[in-house]
Amino acid sequence: MEQFDLDLGRVIGIIKDRNCKTVGLQFPEGLKRRAPGIAGDIEEKTGAHVIISGNPCFGACDIDTILAGRVDALFHFGHAGMGKYDNVVFIEARLNVDVVPAVMKAIPLLKNGKVGLITTVQHVHKLDEVCAVLKEHGKECVIGTGDGRVAYPGQVLGCNFTAARVDCEEILYLGSGIFHPLGVAIATGKKVIAADPYMNQAVEVAPEKFLRKRGGYIARAMDAAVFGIIVSTKSGQNRMELAMRLKALAEKHGKKGFIIEMELVIPEQLLAFRADAYVNTACPRITIDDAERFHAPVLTPQEFESALGERGIEDIEMDEIFQDT
Amino acid sequence: MEQFDLDLGRVIGIIKDRNCKTVGLQFPEGLKRRAPGIAGDIEEKTGAHVIISGNPCFGACDIDTILAGRVDALFHFGHAGMGKYDNVVFIEARLNVDVVPAVMKAIPLLKNGKVGLITTVQHVHKLDEVCAVLKEHGKECVIGTGDGRVAYPGQVLGCNFTAARVDCEEILYLGSGIFHPLGVAIATGKKVIAADPYMNQAVEVAPEKFLRKRGGYIARAMDAAVFGIIVSTKSGQNRMELAMRLKALAEKHGKKGFIIEMELVIPEQLLAFRADAYVNTACPRITIDDAERFHAPVLTPQEFESALGERGIEDIEMDEIFQDT
Repeated sequence: MEQFDLDLGRVIGIIKDRNCKTVGLQFPEGLKRRAPGIAGDIEEKTGAHVIISGNPCFGACDIDTILAGRVDALFHFGHAGMGKYDNVVFIEARLNVDVVPAVMKAIPLLKNGKVGLITTVQHVHKLDEVCAVLKEHGKECVIGTGDGRVAYPGQVLGCNFTAARVDCEEILYLGSGIFHPLGVAIATGKKVIAADPYMNQAVEVAPEKFLRKRGGYIARAMDAAVFGIIVSTKSGQNRMELAMRLKALAEKHGKKGFIIEMELVIPEQLLAFRADAYVNTACPRITIDDAERFHAPVLTPQEFESALGERGIEDIEMDEIFQDT
Repeated sequence: MEQFDLDLGRVIGIIKDRNCKTVGLQFPEGLKRRAPGIAGDIEEKTGAHVIISGNPCFGACDIDTILAGRVDALFHFGHAGMGKYDNVVFIEARLNVDVVPAVMKAIPLLKNGKVGLITTVQHVHKLDEVCAVLKEHGKECVIGTGDGRVAYPGQVLGCNFTAARVDCEEILYLGSGIFHPLGVAIATGKKVIAADPYMNQAVEVAPEKFLRKRGGYIARAMDAAVFGIIVSTKSGQNRMELAMRLKALAEKHGKKGFIIEMELVIPEQLLAFRADAYVNTACPRITIDDAERFHAPVLTPQEFESALGERGIEDIEMDEIFQDT
């Protein structure tokens, strides 16, 4: 049974120190079930009025800024900090799962001496332990710092693989899911081994099938006449400048482009506009994870450039959001 | 074929008069398909940059305030004005459908002389014509002004039936759907005839079955220990004071209440919190229209009072949002 540790003592301490009268709580989907209990605890121990954000929350890029504007402090649970806010406090979730067995399974798959080590925030506190295990097996461990969008050395996000861009021969990803290691493999062009501590297994990432599928979407979008260009209003995902550039690019190629600003990018909402294809400048994961739920091709900015002939299909890069965006 | 007239000449004129560089467009779901074409027209004729709101939009209570804050003017299509905004312009949709045939079918169902006449914004420009037809058939027509939340005499909203509270013996509702006439019947206690110009039919509204179904939800919520109390962040739906009062009421009865603030009230988002039941202070239509999609009972504030024993089941009122709320 996985168990996330949330530092509620720290939350209570901050509320008392700052003498907060109203506080907001924001949780990612997987932690929302704990919200009513935590709200009750806080009210009992501090006397503050608690308001829980009921909006979907998928990352640190996704601060409930409306709620933050209405409370003395907003506690954002589960993600490491991103961006600067006066009254938002990030309460990270640390996962207490033994990662060594999965790493042991990964070691035979690592063929070189110099290994780049990356993970997601839930496991960053385990990286020293993993490094020690690798060293015991004759590997040299390299941990990148990444750019300012990531909070910890070795941490990658679904939209930022800068911590993986280190001088190494292959990369070990610690964590679950295929999205992050796939992104790292494409972004760096290096061999990536994914060690999953939940499933207790390790595999080499193979991006070819994924890239073929994306090539299919690009091909379908080549015939499109009208493109909807999606911009997110979420705090850490707004790329209006990029969207304006892509709109101009569409027009240069005799296509129509229109800009759609939205909070939640969901297939049903795009359907209403009836564009031939879409370009997504919001969270890059939406483009990939929800691809099969969209009624029309939804491309990354780089894929869109390829569909217009501005970029070779072999020059497709992962869509990333960097510190200054 | 139904056809909505939108006054685009007025939109272009305002953009030129105000010398707007960026404009936002917001459409209800049924008009979103016209957004790309209208955006292209506006850009061509004015040179302004256009951003389309991709968020769901269900009424004049639902202004995209984030987009409004980023553009020189936001044009909100399809609804009559509500609330005060510096740079939001309401462009109503007027429906050109002949309403007389449906009214002729309603006349035999009207048994009294004094008829209250109500409709939704799409048909308000037809009320004089309907009045004339009723007069020809010996009826006296009464049109209420409603409170400040409605823009036109005789106009009702899904959350406001004040224009139906007039001195009359029975009420004629002109429009489609069952929600508004049902609400009026319950809110006023009067006999309501609904004349539907799309279907070209007229029926007497029978609220008994609806009230029995709501009674079932109230009964199920009586055993609940934990209530989620929903507050909307939408511009015209925020009733935090009411929510705080309901939370205190829950606690008075030994129940737990927690406040959830959200933009879009959707069943999947509530599921994550695992409360036993919910109270909805956001758009009253959500409670009714989506009732069968929720995994737990979702009550109106008045139904919640009944579940707690603070109000008799026979004293249930429709949930309305008045001017000052």
